[in-house]
Amino acid sequence: MDSTGKASERLQVLTRQVTAGHATTRLAVCPKEMRNFLVHDNKDLRDAIFEFLKDDMYRPNNYQGLMDFREQTLQRLKKFVAQKFFSVRDYTNDPRRFIAALECLMYADYSLAIKAGVHFTLCGGTIAKLGTAYHHAKYLPGVDDLTLPGCFGMTELGHGSNVMGIETTAVYDKEARQFIIHTPNDEASKYWIGGSGQHGKICAVFAQLTVGGQWQGPHVFVVRLRDDQGQLMPGVRIADQGPKMGLNGVDNGRIWFDHVRVPREDMLDAFATVSPDGAYSSSIPSVSQRFGTVVGGLTTGRVLIASGGVDGAKLALTIAIRYSCNRTQFGDRPIMDYVTHQARLLPPLAQTYALHFALGHLKTLVAARRPTDAKAIHVLSSGLKAAATWGRVEAMQDCRECCGGMGFLSSNKIGPLMTDMNVDVTFEGDNTVMMQQVARSLLEDKAALARGSPATPAAGVLATGGASCAKTLQSLLAFRESALVAQVAGEMVSAATRADGPAAKAAASAAAFDRLLDVVVSIGWASMERFCHANFLQELDRAPESLRPALELLAQLYGLSRIQRSLDFYLAVGALNRADVVALRNATAELYSALTAGGPRCAAVTLCDSFGIPDHLLQAPIAFDWRKV
Amino acid sequence: MDSTGKASERLQVLTRQVTAGHATTRLAVCPKEMRNFLVHDNKDLRDAIFEFLKDDMYRPNNYQGLMDFREQTLQRLKKFVAQKFFSVRDYTNDPRRFIAALECLMYADYSLAIKAGVHFTLCGGTIAKLGTAYHHAKYLPGVDDLTLPGCFGMTELGHGSNVMGIETTAVYDKEARQFIIHTPNDEASKYWIGGSGQHGKICAVFAQLTVGGQWQGPHVFVVRLRDDQGQLMPGVRIADQGPKMGLNGVDNGRIWFDHVRVPREDMLDAFATVSPDGAYSSSIPSVSQRFGTVVGGLTTGRVLIASGGVDGAKLALTIAIRYSCNRTQFGDRPIMDYVTHQARLLPPLAQTYALHFALGHLKTLVAARRPTDAKAIHVLSSGLKAAATWGRVEAMQDCRECCGGMGFLSSNKIGPLMTDMNVDVTFEGDNTVMMQQVARSLLEDKAALARGSPATPAAGVLATGGASCAKTLQSLLAFRESALVAQVAGEMVSAATRADGPAAKAAASAAAFDRLLDVVVSIGWASMERFCHANFLQELDRAPESLRPALELLAQLYGLSRIQRSLDFYLAVGALNRADVVALRNATAELYSALTAGGPRCAAVTLCDSFGIPDHLLQAPIAFDWRKV
Repeated sequence: MDSTGKASERLQVLTRQVTAGHATTRLAVCPKEMRNFLVHDNKDLRDAIFEFLKDDMYRPNNYQGLMDFREQTLQRLKKFVAQKFFSVRDYTNDPRRFIAALECLMYADYSLAIKAGVHFTLCGGTIAKLGTAYHHAKYLPGVDDLTLPGCFGMTELGHGSNVMGIETTAVYDKEARQFIIHTPNDEASKYWIGGSGQHGKICAVFAQLTVGGQWQGPHVFVVRLRDDQGQLMPGVRIADQGPKMGLNGVDNGRIWFDHVRVPREDMLDAFATVSPDGAYSSSIPSVSQRFGTVVGGLTTGRVLIASGGVDGAKLALTIAIRYSCNRTQFGDRPIMDYVTHQARLLPPLAQTYALHFALGHLKTLVAARRPTDAKAIHVLSSGLKAAATWGRVEAMQDCRECCGGMGFLSSNKIGPLMTDMNVDVTFEGDNTVMMQQVARSLLEDKAALARGSPATPAAGVLATGGASCAKTLQSLLAFRESALVAQVAGEMVSAATRADGPAAKAAASAAAFDRLLDVVVSIGWASMERFCHANFLQELDRAPESLRPALELLAQLYGLSRIQRSLDFYLAVGALNRADVVALRNATAELYSALTAGGPRCAAVTLCDSFGIPDHLLQAPIAFDWRKV
Repeated sequence: MDSTGKASERLQVLTRQVTAGHATTRLAVCPKEMRNFLVHDNKDLRDAIFEFLKDDMYRPNNYQGLMDFREQTLQRLKKFVAQKFFSVRDYTNDPRRFIAALECLMYADYSLAIKAGVHFTLCGGTIAKLGTAYHHAKYLPGVDDLTLPGCFGMTELGHGSNVMGIETTAVYDKEARQFIIHTPNDEASKYWIGGSGQHGKICAVFAQLTVGGQWQGPHVFVVRLRDDQGQLMPGVRIADQGPKMGLNGVDNGRIWFDHVRVPREDMLDAFATVSPDGAYSSSIPSVSQRFGTVVGGLTTGRVLIASGGVDGAKLALTIAIRYSCNRTQFGDRPIMDYVTHQARLLPPLAQTYALHFALGHLKTLVAARRPTDAKAIHVLSSGLKAAATWGRVEAMQDCRECCGGMGFLSSNKIGPLMTDMNVDVTFEGDNTVMMQQVARSLLEDKAALARGSPATPAAGVLATGGASCAKTLQSLLAFRESALVAQVAGEMVSAATRADGPAAKAAASAAAFDRLLDVVVSIGWASMERFCHANFLQELDRAPESLRPALELLAQLYGLSRIQRSLDFYLAVGALNRADVVALRNATAELYSALTAGGPRCAAVTLCDSFGIPDHLLQAPIAFDWRKV
């Protein structure tokens, strides 16, 4: 090869390729306007907390060892509570304010958010909700100023998801007018108790209450773990659980109680009380209903975890999408131009909007606290917790991979955040169990079940224009939910029919449920997808005109991408056909083009900017100028 | 409720439920015999290294900060090399020994494995392969005893996957008989260079060579980074890249060269040389072919990363499956009894066996080094690297979740390991690019393409017995590969047909490839799945009779589970129908039963024990007795 040939070869290799512009014109989104639409409540509070988090104390330090990180997290929490942005009393008085304040913390650090969440929501909220004036006066001031760091003693080593099966005992000693809290064996030790490893001073302990020889089911007691100087109280033994894969700013511990005596007054008695002379009384007669009341307090925690999952996805997507729209490789072409990148980053963006709106709806229900909404709140807090956190796992892994090695560097935030947050799929309700809660509620709806299997829609609907019709997508999502429910219900009934006698019938039905447990989990997903899409359509109705084009596009992408993930179902039952698959692919490709047209200021980027994450909390250098990392 | 009612209610809640035994009898697997079958080579060496790793120095310490962890990793590597288990010369002389020795390290710590891998494989192996006697004598002893910790200077900030586009220059100075290595701009800085942040003393640097004004493409030079005392050499600037989401025992750095002078002799000259008076000569005439030779050395690295991915999955699955078969919840029923657990843990177990065998085949090809295998080695090392590491990501996340909170605790190993290993999907070849390599090779096979689209098999084959027929599963997997290749090839040809002139035709064809990039990646997957399954069937032929039932079952589960993941494809093209989906589900459920029958000593557990991971490397308390964590 002569030197001209080589020069030209080199030119081909090195010359930056100028790509032709996209066919589509840029979809305009005003981030400020969109943010106003996205944030329903407590805007000033959120802004104030974000501003406060500019403090240098809240910058990440990924060099330090575990013990230093824990101490830093405690100091961060102390400084935060000193600002008095909110009070634990807001848990009942102004739940939206309570949730908003705690939501902000995860943008600084997930350990901080969880340490605050355990203290204020699980411990403080339980005292606020299940306690009465005595407990409020005795404990809530110390919760508010963190002089009484609080823990939540529910989970036991042997009993994670099975809360009703806990073995810690609380026996009333009439003479001493005290409860005796006791850990009968190692499996009954309180396990994973956040904040108890080093700092916790009080703990809301779940124990099986016995009064006068009579078992009354799980009740909650405020137990002092450490004195004011931080020394363990007599009879309390705590083992620090040590390092975790992430979230190492939180000190988890394992607790054993050896006949620890607690004053009679320290049982949280909003729904049940024991008189000094040992008479038990409760406004709720059955143990299982009382149990429902006791664990009902987990709802706010689940809302916060779901919300954290969505906010985590916002952070990761903002970083990954900004970077991908700027980062070039093989010439001047940004990597966001590749459909492989689009397919990994844009459906999660749509999902994040869908989940954000769905959680907004749930928070409104939680704040209104209408008794008629109790079931919906239980179902949505369970299902959205699972959908948001499982969705986050996948979205963040894709974000991390789409940033290449940059996504692995701590300074770019995605990596450490996904490691810290990995806990959210199993804590405060394992996601598999959460999705079962959703399915169980649907399987108990006798009226719906009586209608039997829904009619299968005729295939070809997407290919004949339905791919861009919101109603069509909604009816496909709703069809899947009903069809799966009908399938499981049908198999349960048919198994029961074949069995003799009530006990055998119940067992056969339960066995069928069990055999189909993977389908049961799919019901949970299908139900959340149907709900999120329907709710998204309602949000469209109230959206300002200027925001609608972008939001409609996201709603469509959400619907299409969720249908795509269940294509095997739709194809197997004949609700879609090969032409629909092609139409779905084409419609999706068009949405990708519309979202990425316009380069670094394309709609995908402005839709991320609309999340309103300030630069000092976004932090990742690659979200700004990757050439200057 | 009276006290009898309550007692009975409590009994129902607390009594351990005795579950009826499974219908299936236990599938017997002798772990020792299976391990002998799985480990093809260097058994004694592996055992010796495992034994050596009992040293307390190799126990995890998850409390320490980043700088201490790096120092610990260096000391661990020093002690390891002092044992002289192998030599860097084995890279070319005895590749299987080389690979076997390095493979063992990941069981102790992934940072250690990667620090060793960068030093021995990327740096040492490059010198061994691309250098000649002079370089071997000058550098390899220092590689072997770690007096010359080595780095691999290929990637640049602006050029990750685009190695041909690197901008670092090497200009020959005839007068001084030196090369001048230079970083012309920040984007050309060497980025992510493992081992360079603190410890590296030499670096195999990739640079665009110019001799006598003539560009000759990328060549490799050994550049001294630090002197014997660890001080940076003149003209070398290094920025420590700091904390990463994992793998923090490895000190990654960013390197700039400011006209660094390197003796003429330090260009690795096995395939190209520059005479003292500046005459360039090479046995390979074209720049692009020479480039292929230069980066061909990445193969062993990819084999090791793929192998690490498979071994990581072995560790995580052993821990999660042992735990799940012992852990009870809601009575005496182990959580492995739930189909949701089975569906998450058992297909990855089958996949791990399939990938283990596939990598065994690849290692044999690498060791034999027949020129006719070059293409197969390139394709398999790319595709299996992607399949093994993407498979690992998913398997480990499932393992972590299936262990609940226990999977999040560092002491149970899964969590920290998955965080450390998260890098493997993008380093030494981004997986998306790796899968494209596989597809490109298939799309270049003109003879195969000439045959056009394969005939679609008639649906119903699984429902009529095919679900348990290895040949049927293999033909379905092969069909998908060919059909996807035919689809992409067809669209490329048809796009080219519509364009005028060779340049326009090439551009149109490339644009079609690009538009279908997600399908291209699916081709990579489909091809690896077809290969792994076919290779698994060949292993069955040589397996001892006693191991066949278990291996056949795993091969079947592998085939079925891969088909299941692509059900939408098979259903859309009409190769499977609804009855097949039901048959597939039933067949899979039967395999799950067979693998889990027998409780804590079921086949799923013994098949994990067969991986032969010694207790001191398994470490996780939950893999032994979760009640005694």
